[in-house]
Amino acid sequence: MKLLISNDDGILSLGVRSLANGLAAAGHEVTVVCPDRERSATGHSLTLHDPIRAEMVESHFDPTIKAWACSGTPSDCVKLALGALLDSPPDLVLSGINHGSNIGTDILYSGTVSAAMEGIIEGISAIAFSLASFSARDFQPAVRFAYDLLEQIAVQPLPEVMLLNVNIPPVPQSEIVGITLARQGVRRYTDLFQKRVDPRGKTYYWLAGELLQEVDKDANNPLPTDVRAIQQNYITITPLQYNLTCAIGLESLASWKLLNRG
Amino acid sequence: MKLLISNDDGILSLGVRSLANGLAAAGHEVTVVCPDRERSATGHSLTLHDPIRAEMVESHFDPTIKAWACSGTPSDCVKLALGALLDSPPDLVLSGINHGSNIGTDILYSGTVSAAMEGIIEGISAIAFSLASFSARDFQPAVRFAYDLLEQIAVQPLPEVMLLNVNIPPVPQSEIVGITLARQGVRRYTDLFQKRVDPRGKTYYWLAGELLQEVDKDANNPLPTDVRAIQQNYITITPLQYNLTCAIGLESLASWKLLNRG
Repeated sequence: MKLLISNDDGILSLGVRSLANGLAAAGHEVTVVCPDRERSATGHSLTLHDPIRAEMVESHFDPTIKAWACSGTPSDCVKLALGALLDSPPDLVLSGINHGSNIGTDILYSGTVSAAMEGIIEGISAIAFSLASFSARDFQPAVRFAYDLLEQIAVQPLPEVMLLNVNIPPVPQSEIVGITLARQGVRRYTDLFQKRVDPRGKTYYWLAGELLQEVDKDANNPLPTDVRAIQQNYITITPLQYNLTCAIGLESLASWKLLNRG
Repeated sequence: MKLLISNDDGILSLGVRSLANGLAAAGHEVTVVCPDRERSATGHSLTLHDPIRAEMVESHFDPTIKAWACSGTPSDCVKLALGALLDSPPDLVLSGINHGSNIGTDILYSGTVSAAMEGIIEGISAIAFSLASFSARDFQPAVRFAYDLLEQIAVQPLPEVMLLNVNIPPVPQSEIVGITLARQGVRRYTDLFQKRVDPRGKTYYWLAGELLQEVDKDANNPLPTDVRAIQQNYITITPLQYNLTCAIGLESLASWKLLNRG
């Protein structure tokens, strides 16, 4: 398959190198377009007020891979690749492998998920891969799963344009319990900011935050949340969409007087 | 009501000044926490790797308003306000009035919508206001609608924690056709990048893009899209959610062999 790979950890990260080299070795045609530096928690940002640059790099990828370092955000990278750098559209946009999970409400801030989202906005199916640990260095179980997933898609194609958010537990292959579909959970944080004083007596803040236990408002749902399933060492697959319309909200507002004045 | 107001155009924008001063004049207790410079198209970004600063400013707001200029993104502003600057939670988080519409898939990149999204993630209802023109300078019809909407919520509270994405057409009050619920539409662009060469012979790109006509895949839906309704000079209200799980995707993947290996 023809694959476009991006990420938010930057072109030098071990995660993207592992994914790109692993899939190129399996015979896929890989182009990498990544930010030239770390761009975590950039969410779905676009660069509107500055020019964007992209330079081909050769250093640490398999020689069959075309790789570009881009001055923009993850979304910029995918937009630029699809709009200007690639000669023809890829079969899939892949993002990652991210260093750290992308689960629950945290995915709203995720550059990794946003890069994949850019794919489906442009009509190309996409997969975001995240290894659920900031410190884990063994990307091989995640690469192996990416390989399996692409094999699966080759024989049983995705039924429509789709974004799959995939998280892999940071454990050896033998400890992975299974693969499960999951719904997006919620993660809440407390004590979000640390307040400090600089050497000149001025206040500043660091975003920190302690993770609280998940509160699942839909606990009777037989499908686990991504937050819960990854804790149980499942590989999670969560299909995501870009339509944020809240159907329940539409229903509950329909009787609003403001809307029915004439 | 106790209101927290933020935006993505920055503390100096006419839109936020109009909204804050208009609602303070109507008797609401207003705190403004905005980026210290323009932060459009920042999406749902957080500042993780730099300290965040916030300074009280007095210049151009009503004297009853507490206003802070923050070094961070729109999401940072709301997080910092709720976590560190405000003594007690507000009744509502408001964002805007944005200079330019926030409709269709463009809302994925919107700092205005992200600031409001931060409110509902923290359990506080939120409203994003956008005037659907980059060049319009008359925010009074939008301010008047914000005033009416808050009156409505005071007598008929929102049924649950909810984010309302509101767009106001850039026309005089007399030309506004009505107020309608709307679903998120799709906007597609073509010719996304302009390729140029700098004085030193190196290539760079500008994100540009021509807007294409909307293609509504769900054209039989009696509810209009935000894209269409705003063109017809309706004020649009679209409830949005932070759960991106694609229910149809879950159904269509359930039979996947990869998931049913045992």
